[in-house]
Amino acid sequence: MKKLINAADSVVEDALAGLAAAHPALRVRNRVVHRADAPRPGKVALVSGGGSGHEPLHAGFVGHGMLDAACPGEIFTSPVPDQIIDATQAVDGGAGVLHIVKNYTGDVLNFEMAAELVEDVEVASVLVDDDVAVQDSLYTAGRRGTGATLFVEKIAGALAEEGAPLAEVARVAREVNERSRSFGIALTSCTTPAAGRPTFDLPPGEVELGIGIHGEPGRTRVPLAPARELVAVAMAAIHGDLPLRDDLLVLVNGMGATPLIELYVVFAEVEAIVRGKGARVARSLVGNYVTSLDMQGFSVTVCRLDATLTRLWDAPVETPALRWGR
Amino acid sequence: MKKLINAADSVVEDALAGLAAAHPALRVRNRVVHRADAPRPGKVALVSGGGSGHEPLHAGFVGHGMLDAACPGEIFTSPVPDQIIDATQAVDGGAGVLHIVKNYTGDVLNFEMAAELVEDVEVASVLVDDDVAVQDSLYTAGRRGTGATLFVEKIAGALAEEGAPLAEVARVAREVNERSRSFGIALTSCTTPAAGRPTFDLPPGEVELGIGIHGEPGRTRVPLAPARELVAVAMAAIHGDLPLRDDLLVLVNGMGATPLIELYVVFAEVEAIVRGKGARVARSLVGNYVTSLDMQGFSVTVCRLDATLTRLWDAPVETPALRWGR
Repeated sequence: MKKLINAADSVVEDALAGLAAAHPALRVRNRVVHRADAPRPGKVALVSGGGSGHEPLHAGFVGHGMLDAACPGEIFTSPVPDQIIDATQAVDGGAGVLHIVKNYTGDVLNFEMAAELVEDVEVASVLVDDDVAVQDSLYTAGRRGTGATLFVEKIAGALAEEGAPLAEVARVAREVNERSRSFGIALTSCTTPAAGRPTFDLPPGEVELGIGIHGEPGRTRVPLAPARELVAVAMAAIHGDLPLRDDLLVLVNGMGATPLIELYVVFAEVEAIVRGKGARVARSLVGNYVTSLDMQGFSVTVCRLDATLTRLWDAPVETPALRWGR
Repeated sequence: MKKLINAADSVVEDALAGLAAAHPALRVRNRVVHRADAPRPGKVALVSGGGSGHEPLHAGFVGHGMLDAACPGEIFTSPVPDQIIDATQAVDGGAGVLHIVKNYTGDVLNFEMAAELVEDVEVASVLVDDDVAVQDSLYTAGRRGTGATLFVEKIAGALAEEGAPLAEVARVAREVNERSRSFGIALTSCTTPAAGRPTFDLPPGEVELGIGIHGEPGRTRVPLAPARELVAVAMAAIHGDLPLRDDLLVLVNGMGATPLIELYVVFAEVEAIVRGKGARVARSLVGNYVTSLDMQGFSVTVCRLDATLTRLWDAPVETPALRWGR
């Protein structure tokens, strides 16, 4: 294993120190990353979190127009309820807090427990489960939450910034999830610092279709094929679940170690397929955003836009990983 | 070799198609990427370029407040003079064009030839040679141009956007280069699509100090060490060449396949060293920006700021890879 780390057991701590040093608009304490200007009185606050190893998700999305706080767990390990309670209390501005939870068993349990235990804060929750690849998985009952998390955090974050009440922010967050679908393909495994060796074996010349963001198994393995064919598989899976039509928001996402030049090759194929269905890529994002440590591969996430969601996507955002419009 | 490509000989073309589809504010034609709103009458235009494989450099930095055009060559291959002439003529708004050239033999020759051959356009050039690792290299007489290219493009681009004349934009571009130093360390080789195998052999457990962005050799190989020790080597090389003091702009850059969590671990160590010298990281950027295909590793680039350079760094920018402030 070759990694830029000091020690396997200090990776999360060391990376959070770097995050804090690089981004003065954030505060990091007790494994909670929050906006330095939190709490914002009267604004609904958004809290997310999950295992580390998916950077920039979630801490890289804390800031104006997106999350108010993130709770990073250990690598691929849910944050504990105390962290979530701490974050929730730190950012509540009196208008309530929305928990954005990816559908993994540990995350769901710990966010539920935190929501029950937190005192004097109104909490609503939205579950993200956009991955069409498998119904249940190693860590999930039901579908996994992957790329749509970014869409939910961005769009609900913009609505909260506009001053919408908690019920409305939660409703739109759920709507974004319902309108979104994802599918991922891995070229390589990932290696956790603690294990020091690849999570699974993927022979040279094979790829895993429908991979999750923790290296959990997908649907099947097939021989490596041109990008055009791999993208066709991903888009067929998405289209089969939620037909591609009208205006779409598209994320072409790298799994952490995917060079940008390859992601643009993928994007060209995605856009051609969307166009071929008579739909349109109205908004897009290309890069490594919802990752799985050093995995190579990609995922595509598609969200069916309407005028309101488009306006909220376009709204100003200022976080370490997404910045525009201010 | 596992890559998300259609064919080894179509990677650049296919990726540029994706870039064009993803970014409606850009135009891509004949291997030139330019702002859709070019030429801007009365504004000095900035043109850069070089081999592909370093994405988002350079095409990802085309847009408001940065480059007016980029000329992507084949993978690790200089653009040809015709491309550069085409780009220069396409974006000249009557105020002249600045060529920003990384110091590699092919780039230097081809930009010089283009500057001589282009008609009716005033051209100035700035050479970027910030890498302190080696004096000459496989493709270079003198020092290599690496991370400081991003600083030069951003800061000179902001000055051009303000309406400064060509001589002044060129002067400040050169000043940014003179105030900047870089050093890179590779954990792995890169693999070009054409070769299909790693450019060089780097055994498990070893890293290459002073690596270039094409896999060309650095200073020496040493056993893999904690991030703290690797960063200390890089910062000592930089500090030995240009003492770290006062306010610094710092880029902690991934080589293309470096997970963000590791880059933040590196950043924490860089910031601690800077602080230990009595200097300050006044501005920073952490991510994969000046890359070498699928290489794992990092580089650090440091620029000594003054009030003017800080203002220009902070100025609005709107490109695929850098966006803020509008």
